[in-house]
Amino acid sequence: MSEYRLLIDTTDEKGLVYNISKILFNHNLNIENNAEYVDKDVNKFFMRTVISGDFDKAKLLNDVKSVLPNDATIKLSKNTKKDIVILATKEAHCLGDILIRYVSGELNANIKAVIANHDTLQNLVEKFDIPFICVSHDGLDREVHEKMVIEAIDKFEPEIIVLAKYMRILNPSFVNHFGNKILNIHHSFLPAFIGANPYKQAWQRGVKIIGATAHYVTSDLDEGPIVSQDIVRVDHTYSWENMRDAGRNVEKVVLSNALGLLLEDKVFVYGNKTVIL
Amino acid sequence: MSEYRLLIDTTDEKGLVYNISKILFNHNLNIENNAEYVDKDVNKFFMRTVISGDFDKAKLLNDVKSVLPNDATIKLSKNTKKDIVILATKEAHCLGDILIRYVSGELNANIKAVIANHDTLQNLVEKFDIPFICVSHDGLDREVHEKMVIEAIDKFEPEIIVLAKYMRILNPSFVNHFGNKILNIHHSFLPAFIGANPYKQAWQRGVKIIGATAHYVTSDLDEGPIVSQDIVRVDHTYSWENMRDAGRNVEKVVLSNALGLLLEDKVFVYGNKTVIL
Amino acid sequence: MSEYRLLIDTTDEKGLVYNISKILFNHNLNIENNAEYVDKDVNKFFMRTVISGDFDKAKLLNDVKSVLPNDATIKLSKNTKKDIVILATKEAHCLGDILIRYVSGELNANIKAVIANHDTLQNLVEKFDIPFICVSHDGLDREVHEKMVIEAIDKFEPEIIVLAKYMRILNPSFVNHFGNKILNIHHSFLPAFIGANPYKQAWQRGVKIIGATAHYVTSDLDEGPIVSQDIVRVDHTYSWENMRDAGRNVEKVVLSNALGLLLEDKVFVYGNKTVIL
Amino acid sequence: MSEYRLLIDTTDEKGLVYNISKILFNHNLNIENNAEYVDKDVNKFFMRTVISGDFDKAKLLNDVKSVLPNDATIKLSKNTKKDIVILATKEAHCLGDILIRYVSGELNANIKAVIANHDTLQNLVEKFDIPFICVSHDGLDREVHEKMVIEAIDKFEPEIIVLAKYMRILNPSFVNHFGNKILNIHHSFLPAFIGANPYKQAWQRGVKIIGATAHYVTSDLDEGPIVSQDIVRVDHTYSWENMRDAGRNVEKVVLSNALGLLLEDKVFVYGNKTVIL
Repeated sequence: MSEYRLLIDTTDEKGLVYNISKILFNHNLNIENNAEYVDKDVNKFFMRTVISGDFDKAKLLNDVKSVLPNDATIKLSKNTKKDIVILATKEAHCLGDILIRYVSGELNANIKAVIANHDTLQNLVEKFDIPFICVSHDGLDREVHEKMVIEAIDKFEPEIIVLAKYMRILNPSFVNHFGNKILNIHHSFLPAFIGANPYKQAWQRGVKIIGATAHYVTSDLDEGPIVSQDIVRVDHTYSWENMRDAGRNVEKVVLSNALGLLLEDKVFVYGNKTVIL
Repeated sequence: MSEYRLLIDTTDEKGLVYNISKILFNHNLNIENNAEYVDKDVNKFFMRTVISGDFDKAKLLNDVKSVLPNDATIKLSKNTKKDIVILATKEAHCLGDILIRYVSGELNANIKAVIANHDTLQNLVEKFDIPFICVSHDGLDREVHEKMVIEAIDKFEPEIIVLAKYMRILNPSFVNHFGNKILNIHHSFLPAFIGANPYKQAWQRGVKIIGATAHYVTSDLDEGPIVSQDIVRVDHTYSWENMRDAGRNVEKVVLSNALGLLLEDKVFVYGNKTVIL
Repeated sequence: MSEYRLLIDTTDEKGLVYNISKILFNHNLNIENNAEYVDKDVNKFFMRTVISGDFDKAKLLNDVKSVLPNDATIKLSKNTKKDIVILATKEAHCLGDILIRYVSGELNANIKAVIANHDTLQNLVEKFDIPFICVSHDGLDREVHEKMVIEAIDKFEPEIIVLAKYMRILNPSFVNHFGNKILNIHHSFLPAFIGANPYKQAWQRGVKIIGATAHYVTSDLDEGPIVSQDIVRVDHTYSWENMRDAGRNVEKVVLSNALGLLLEDKVFVYGNKTVIL
Repeated sequence: MSEYRLLIDTTDEKGLVYNISKILFNHNLNIENNAEYVDKDVNKFFMRTVISGDFDKAKLLNDVKSVLPNDATIKLSKNTKKDIVILATKEAHCLGDILIRYVSGELNANIKAVIANHDTLQNLVEKFDIPFICVSHDGLDREVHEKMVIEAIDKFEPEIIVLAKYMRILNPSFVNHFGNKILNIHHSFLPAFIGANPYKQAWQRGVKIIGATAHYVTSDLDEGPIVSQDIVRVDHTYSWENMRDAGRNVEKVVLSNALGLLLEDKVFVYGNKTVIL
C-alpha cells in the first residue's frame, strides 16, 4: 500500500486542525506521521501529514479544499522517486556525493541528467550510466547560454534542479522559468561572504568557523530561502585552500541533506524563509 | 489572559487528533502553539498544546478525558513560575549559571532553596537572597543523610529538583520518593564514561570530543532518560583538568537548557526516552 | 617557582627557532610548553614559550633581542592575574558568566571595576564586592561621554578592557587610546549581521544557525581581529527573541573563552587576524 | 624541489629543540612548517617538520640521530602519494567518499585495491578502474579467511589499510601482522556503544547526539587510539534507521579526514593516544 504526503499551506484560521483532521478521520486513513506549524507573525498555517490506506484521492483533495481558506495550496504527493536534474561545473565533491547515494540506493530520486558548462565531470558521470550534457558557455551571451541550458533541462521535466556547484550566475528569467524548484549550495555561511570566492574572503577576514548554505534560488544572488546550513572550525594555520577543502565536506553534506528534505516534501517556502516539517 | 499548556500522554489510537481538536474547537480556545508526536514502536501518543481564552478548566479536562483511552495522562499546566530546589556540592558553574538567569529574569522559576552537602557555596547563594541549607553527610550513613535531605527538600514542595553537580550517589528510595522530578547533569557524553571522574576517563581514553548530558534521575546510576546533550572538541594538548574546564561550559549550558525545557512543560518521559515537543 | 611566558612576534627569517632555542638552552631554563607559527603569506613569525627556572630576566630579554630582527616585539609575561575592567550596559549574561568564574577562582584576573552606562547591573555587581561605576550617557555628546568613560577606566590601569555587551558604538579616539586592549563580544557570526540587532536580522533572513564572535575592537565597527566564534542551531519555530535567548548561551561562553585566551597570553594579533598559540 | 617530513618520536629531554634545530640550520634547509609537542605526563617528545632544499638525506638522519636519546624513532617521509588498500563489506558511503576524492585528485594516495568479503561493491569499485578482490568468508574458519585476506593485502605492500566499514572482527594475529597501519571507522562516539549495531544501541538509549570515531586498530575491539571524531544531533523522531543514515554522513567525513591526516604524516601514536601535529 502506497503512502502519500498531504501538504497544506494556507492562511491560518481557527479550527483548521479540527476541520482537516475530521476529514482525514472520515476517510478512514491511517496517519503515519503528522506535523503542523503556525507562523503567528504572518498568519500562515503549514501541515504535512503522511497517510496510507485505501482512499479516493480526488474526493479527499476536494473535501480538504472545502474547509480551507481560498488561498490554500493543497498537494497530495506520492512517496515515490522524484525526477531531478543536476547542474555542475568542474568540482566533483557535491555531485559525487549525490552519485554515491544514488548508486547505493540511498537517494529517493531518479537522476535524469547532469548538465555542465564544462566537460570536466563527464567521465565521472558516465561511470554511473547517467546522461551527461555539456552546454559550454564559450563565446555565448549569458542569455543565449541560459536558453540552451533551460532547453536541455526542460526535456527531462524534473521536479527539482540541483545546482551542485554550478558556478554561473543565473538571470531572473532562468530562475522564474523554474519557480521554486532550484536548490543551490553556497560555499559560505550566508549571509556572510555573498558572491565570489567566499573561502578567500573568509580567510582574509580571519574567521574561526566556515560554513555552507543550501538554499532555494531566487532572482537575488545568494538571497533565496535557506534550507540547511552547517559549519566547520578552522584556525590560523589554514590557508584559503585548506578552508576550501574543509568546506567541501560541509558543502556536500549540507546539499545532500537539503535535497533529501525536498525529496521527502518536508520543506515549505514562504517569503524568504522555509518551514521544515 | 493566562496561557495554559494541555499535556496529553496516552496509548495511540485512530482519531485522537480529530477528537481532541474537536473539543478544543468547541471550547472556543485560542491555540497558540500545538505539537504532537506518535511513537509507532510503542504505540504512544504525546501532545502539547498551548491554549488561551476564557474557558472552564474542569469541563475542558473532563471533555478531553472522555475521548481518550483509559490509560491517558492529562495535565493542564499554567504558564507561571514553577517552584524548584537545587542540590549542589562544591562546584559553582552550574549553580551560578542558574542564579544569573534567575537574577536577570530569564528563568521561569522560583528557586526556593539551594541544599548542599558542603558549605562551599553558601556565600555565593546568599548573595542572591536564596535560602542555603547545608546538610553535611559527615559521619552519617547514606540512608540517614538522604532522609535529612528529603526532609529539607519536602518543606519547599518543589515541582523540580535540579542536581547542579550534586556529587552524591542517590539510593532508589530517594529517587522513588520524588518520581520523575529530578534533573541531573552528568559530566560526560552518556553512555560513555558512566560513574566517577569522567573527564579523567575521557583523557585516559584519548578522546577528541567531550560532552555533557542532562537526564532524569532513575534508580540506575546515569541511566535515566536523556533530555539534552552537547559536546566540545578537545585535542592532545588538553590535560584532564583542561577537559574539565572546557566541559564546565558545556555542563552549565546543557543543564540550564534542559531545565528551561522542563519549566516550559516540553518534556515527556516514557521508558528511558524523552519526547521534546 | 614562577612561570613566565616569552612572547615573540617578528619578521620571519632562517634560523629563528635555532637561535632562540639556543639562548633558552644557555639560560638553563625549563621549557614547560612551546608553540610557534610562521605565516608564510606575510612572512611573520610568532612564538609563545612557557618557561620556568632561576634566570636573569633582563639578560634573557637582551639575549633574545640580539638574535631577532629589529622589528621584533618581545615580551616576558608572568603567570599572574591580570587587571581587567569590564564595560556593560543592561544585559547580565556575559557579565554574570565572568563574575561566577571570578568568584569560583576560575578566572585568572582581578576585576578592578565594572563600568556601565546604565545602573541596571549595579545590584548584581555589588553582590561580588566589585566597584560598579555608572557613567550615564544621558544628555551627553558621544565625545564627552567617552572621555568620562576613558577617565573612569584609566584610573584602574587595566591590561584588558572587556566589553560584555556594552551597547555603545565607540569612536576611533576611544579605541586608539587603548590600542589592542579591548575585547568585544558581537552577537552574530561575523561578518554576517554587522550592526544593530543582529538576532532580528538573522530571524528575518531565516537562517538555520546563529553565532557569536569575540574580537578585538578596532576603529571599524565589528571589523576587528576575531579571537573566537561559536554557533547554535535554530529552526523555523524560533522567534527572534528565542534566537536572542539561545544566542546568549553562545555569547557568554565565547566571550569568557576568548578572555581566557588573552589572560594566558595565547593571542597574537596582526593585520585583522589572530594567531592562537 | 620535493618536500620531506621529518618525524621524531622520542623520550623528552632538555635541549631537544635546540639540538634538532641546530642540525636543520646547519644543513641549510628551508623549514616550511614546524610543530612539536611534549607530553609531560609520559615524558615524550614529538616533532613534525616539513623541510625542503638540497640536502643529504642519510647525513641528515644520522646527524639528527646523534643528538637524540637512544629510543628515538626518526623518519624522513617524502611528500608523495602513499599506497593504500581499502577493506569493505557491503556499505558504499565510506568507500564512495574516498573514491570520489581519489578520482577528483583530492586524495594524496594510490588506491592499490579494494578487498571485500562480499561482492556487493564490485560494480562500484570497477567503475574507478581499481582492482576489486572478493575474499568471501563463506564456510571458512575466521583464521583461514584472515590468512587469505592478509595474503591479498600483502601483495600490494600498502602503507595504510583502511577499514571502510569492514564488518568483520579481526584477530590479534591479523592486527599484529600489520602493526599500526590499520585505520578503522567505528559508527559510534567511542567509547559509547562498543560492538555490534551501535545505532540501534543509541536509539534504545534515547541519545540526543550520535557520532563516529576513526581509530587505529589494536587487538582490543574498538579500543585503539582515536584519530578523529565527530557528531550529529538527533531527536525523538529518529528511528534507528534514520540515525544510521544521519550517522553515515559523519562516518564518511570522519574517516576521510583521518585518512588525510595519516597521508600527511600528521599522526603520532603512543599508548592508546594520538598526537596530531
